[in-house]
Amino acid sequence: MPLPVEFWPVEFWFEFASSYSYLSVMRVETEAAQRGVSVIWRPFLLGPAFKAHGWDTSPFRVYPLKAKYMWRDMERRSAALGIEFNRPPPDKMDTFPQFTVTAARIAIIGLDADWGKDFCRNVCRAEWVDSANIADKALLAKLAVQAGAPTNIMKLASHPDAKLKLRHQTERATKLKIFGAPSFTVGDELFWGDDRLEDALDWAAKS
Amino acid sequence: MPLPVEFWPVEFWFEFASSYSYLSVMRVETEAAQRGVSVIWRPFLLGPAFKAHGWDTSPFRVYPLKAKYMWRDMERRSAALGIEFNRPPPDKMDTFPQFTVTAARIAIIGLDADWGKDFCRNVCRAEWVDSANIADKALLAKLAVQAGAPTNIMKLASHPDAKLKLRHQTERATKLKIFGAPSFTVGDELFWGDDRLEDALDWAAKS
Repeated sequence: MPLPVEFWPVEFWFEFASSYSYLSVMRVETEAAQRGVSVIWRPFLLGPAFKAHGWDTSPFRVYPLKAKYMWRDMERRSAALGIEFNRPPPDKMDTFPQFTVTAARIAIIGLDADWGKDFCRNVCRAEWVDSANIADKALLAKLAVQAGAPTNIMKLASHPDAKLKLRHQTERATKLKIFGAPSFTVGDELFWGDDRLEDALDWAAKS
Repeated sequence: MPLPVEFWPVEFWFEFASSYSYLSVMRVETEAAQRGVSVIWRPFLLGPAFKAHGWDTSPFRVYPLKAKYMWRDMERRSAALGIEFNRPPPDKMDTFPQFTVTAARIAIIGLDADWGKDFCRNVCRAEWVDSANIADKALLAKLAVQAGAPTNIMKLASHPDAKLKLRHQTERATKLKIFGAPSFTVGDELFWGDDRLEDALDWAAKS
């Protein structure tokens, strides 16, 4: 059954482990505002989505050449977009892709309040500018509080309810046949990749 | 594990079939604004929540005296609150409690856009002022479009994704041990009933 796209909000699906998601996190609000489109942010986990689609690992692990290309492409695109980006140094490469469950849980909590988008941008900058380990809970707590989260945020993030919300979000991503990040859904229309961000927003604006 | 309430948004859980939910739908935003508190609206289905708690029907069916009392209490409280309310006439009583699945699905779609709260208020007034049958899809479509929904809203509401969202929301209500409507959650604090609306908002405001 096709899902009509008229008046449907754009949903922005991203995964902190995904380099291209970083670009979209940093620029989606500006691009959306220019078009008068509203965007709902949906952090999710790619790992379980891959599994649900029958893949047991990231395509970047299956195709090392693609990973190599991705890093170079990221350098070029970030420069072109004016977004700061530092390729992780070789001694830190073994932490990529990063473990993002906790960051995603915090993000979901923050997106139900008013500090979620700032938190996401903080996490992305830590990861993709400073090559920091965003599985580090002390770092995550600091970035969250800087964005406006309560000081007990790590307690909130480990609550079963936060886990349930992230699980639900990932389950929806899977049902929507999302197989990569970032993705944008406008009704049944799926757009994959930061390089389709404008297309997705234009689609929503013209609907 | 206790969920700390500090800075947690108030979640307002309601069911269109519930008379007391009507009162909260009509007044929650005014009361929240007075306290500087933000409220996230969460329509859900009481039936599946009851089942998950091991109950096979509404307590109002188990205790007819309570149902009788409820109608009189609704007349008094609505008058005291200045909210229009008409007890359903005897010949329409067999449609109460109403079948609310479609209304709830539309509400969830609208709450992700900007017309959800108006739609909820429209549905509630149709049900509790005009004694209309809110399972009537033509009526729901009309009320939704009046609130600002696209004209193809009924197609959106029958999409598997709309069903999934309502299922997830009801599952969360169950996990949060919600057993009646309206309910308000502020972290792990559960407040049940329109007569606890102020308490819930005060709790959030002082946290």
